[in-house]
Amino acid sequence: MKYKTLEFKEETLKLIDQRKLPGEIEYFKADNYKKVIEAIKNMVVRGAPAIGAAGAFGVYLAASEFKKINDKNKFYKKIKSANKDLIKARPTAVNLSWAVNRMENRIKENRDKTVNKILNILLNEARKILKEDIEINKQMAQNGNKLIPEQATILTHCNTGALATVDYGTALGVIREAYFDNKNIEVFADETRPRLQGARLTTFELKQENIPVTLIVDSVAATLIKDGKIDIILVGADRIAANGDTANKIGTYMLSEIARKHQVPFYVVAPTSTIDIKINTGEEIEIEERGKNEVIEINGQRIAPSGVKVYNPAFDITPISNINAIITEKGIIRAPFKENIKKYCKNK
Amino acid sequence: MKYKTLEFKEETLKLIDQRKLPGEIEYFKADNYKKVIEAIKNMVVRGAPAIGAAGAFGVYLAASEFKKINDKNKFYKKIKSANKDLIKARPTAVNLSWAVNRMENRIKENRDKTVNKILNILLNEARKILKEDIEINKQMAQNGNKLIPEQATILTHCNTGALATVDYGTALGVIREAYFDNKNIEVFADETRPRLQGARLTTFELKQENIPVTLIVDSVAATLIKDGKIDIILVGADRIAANGDTANKIGTYMLSEIARKHQVPFYVVAPTSTIDIKINTGEEIEIEERGKNEVIEINGQRIAPSGVKVYNPAFDITPISNINAIITEKGIIRAPFKENIKKYCKNK
Repeated sequence: MKYKTLEFKEETLKLIDQRKLPGEIEYFKADNYKKVIEAIKNMVVRGAPAIGAAGAFGVYLAASEFKKINDKNKFYKKIKSANKDLIKARPTAVNLSWAVNRMENRIKENRDKTVNKILNILLNEARKILKEDIEINKQMAQNGNKLIPEQATILTHCNTGALATVDYGTALGVIREAYFDNKNIEVFADETRPRLQGARLTTFELKQENIPVTLIVDSVAATLIKDGKIDIILVGADRIAANGDTANKIGTYMLSEIARKHQVPFYVVAPTSTIDIKINTGEEIEIEERGKNEVIEINGQRIAPSGVKVYNPAFDITPISNINAIITEKGIIRAPFKENIKKYCKNK
Repeated sequence: MKYKTLEFKEETLKLIDQRKLPGEIEYFKADNYKKVIEAIKNMVVRGAPAIGAAGAFGVYLAASEFKKINDKNKFYKKIKSANKDLIKARPTAVNLSWAVNRMENRIKENRDKTVNKILNILLNEARKILKEDIEINKQMAQNGNKLIPEQATILTHCNTGALATVDYGTALGVIREAYFDNKNIEVFADETRPRLQGARLTTFELKQENIPVTLIVDSVAATLIKDGKIDIILVGADRIAANGDTANKIGTYMLSEIARKHQVPFYVVAPTSTIDIKINTGEEIEIEERGKNEVIEINGQRIAPSGVKVYNPAFDITPISNINAIITEKGIIRAPFKENIKKYCKNK
C-alpha cells in the first residue's frame, strides 16, 4: 500500500491514524509505551496483526524509558508491569499478547547481558516481528489464492488489509493476491458498524489497487448470499481457539450462519500467531465491550436520543462448524480441525 | 405518543419530519399532492401504514387542486395520473397503493356526483383511513399481546411504532400493549442501517413511554440470539405475499434465519392491508433500491471514499418458512399460511 500502517524511526512509532481515514491522512507519533497503549486502546491502530507489531515496539519503548534504572531487578519489574498494561489495551486479539510475550522471552533469555545490549536485542526483535508479518501475509495470500477460482465475487467483513497488518493484509491479502494473479474478482465490503472499518478502510485500500468493490450495510450481506450473488466469504480473526472457534469483528458469526445455510464457502485467514492453543473453545475467549459513543455518535454527531442504553461488543464467536478452512502462512487447515491445528502449532 | 405522525387541518397535511428526529422536532407541511409525494420519497414520513394514510390525503389534495377543471373527464384523468405518481413514490410497501386505490374506488362509485360532493367524500374517506389505522393498530396490539409472556426480552428491527403508523404502531404497538399490561418486558432495538430508524426513532418512542430499551448495531442481534438472550422477535412488514413471504426493512431476513436456527419465535405484525393477495410469493415483490448517499453519508458527513460503488436495497424478503405467525387486526395467522391468509383476506 502507498501508506504505511506503522513504521519505527528516530525512537518513535509512527502510525497512520486510522480513525481519520479516508478523509484525512494523519500520523500519530508514539515516543513512549503509554502513547502506544493509547493508540491501541483508541484504535489509532487496529487489526490483530497490526496491534501485535505495535505492541512489540511498545515493549522496546518501555525498556528504553526504564534503562536509567540502575537496579536491574527493578528494571525488569517495570518492564513487566508495562507489558501487562500493553496486553490489557485490547483484550480479544491474541496477537498483542503473543508479540509482547515474544519480546519478554527475549528479555528472559538475555537477562545477564547489559541493558544496552538488551535494548538492541529488543529493537531487532520488534523489527523482526514487523518484517515477518509482511512475509507471513504474503505466504498466507499465496496459500489462500489457491482457493479462489478464476472468476469470483468475494464478500469480506471489517478491514483485514494492509491497515490491519504491517502490510498486504490477511483476508484482504488473499483478495489482493488473486487480483494481482489476474483473476476476475469483485468484492462486496460490509461497512462494519459501529466503527465502519469496511466503509472507511477496506474500500479505501481496494480503490487504491483498483480492485472492483461495492459497499453494503452489514445486513445486506444475508440477502446477497441468499440470492446466490456471493461465491466466497473471507474474514480475518482476532483469536482462534484450539478447536478452531474464531473470535472476529462483530457480525462475523451472523455471516457464517447465513453462509452455512446457503453453502457458500466461509474461510478465516489468519497467521498461526492468532491461534491460542491454550484456549479450548470459543466460549473461553474474552469479548471486549467498548463504549456506547461508538454506537450513538458518528464523527461526533449524535444519532440516538441522549441517555439511551447501548450494548456494544466488539467481537463475536464463529463456531468452527461454520468455517470451511483456516488459511495460515503454513498452509490451509481443514477438518479435523482440532488435530490439524495442533499439528500446525506444534512449534509454538 | 406525545407527537402526531400526521394530521390534516386547514387543507394541509402536517407531518412530523422523521429525518430530523430525535435531534429536532420539526413539521413538514404539504398543501398539495406533489409535496406529499416529496415527503414520502424523501422519508419525511415512513412506515407502511403511515405512508398509506399520507397517500390517501395526497389523493384528496390532488382532487382539490384539479376541482376548477370544468371537463369532468379531464378532472378524473388528472387525478388518475396524480394517483399513479403517488403510488410510485415508494414501490415496496403495499399500503400506499392500497390506500390510493381505496380513494380511487370512492371516486369511481361517485362519478355522477358534483365535484364538491366528491371532494367531501374523499376527505371523509382519508380521515376514515386515518382513524381506522389507529383502531386497527390497537386491535393488532391486543392480539399480539397474547403471545407475549409475563416476562420477555424482545428484539425488534427498524421503527414500527407510532411514527410508522398514524399512532400506536404495529410491532411496537404489541410491545406498548404488553408494557401497559404490566408485563415485565425489555427491548433490544437494532439501529437499522442505513437510515437508523431503530437508533433514531424506536429508542425515542420507547424512552417516551419509559419502556426499557437497549440499542445495538444490527450485527449484534445474531450473537444475542445465539447466546439465548432473546425470547421473541417482533417485526413489521411492508408487503406480505399470498403465501406469507414478507418484504420488510433490510436486515429482517438475516434476523429470521438466525432466529430459526436458534428456535426463537419470529412474528410479523401487520394489518391485513399489508397483505397483497395478488402476489403469490416474495419473489414477485419489487424491492426498492435507494440512493448511495444513505450509506456513504451520515447527517451530511462522509464516511466512505468518494466515488465508491454502493448497493442499497431498502428491503429484503423473509420466507414464510422462517415466520412463526403473522399478527393482524383480525387475529393471529398461523400455518397453513396460504389457506389461512386467504380466509383472513376474503373480504378484501
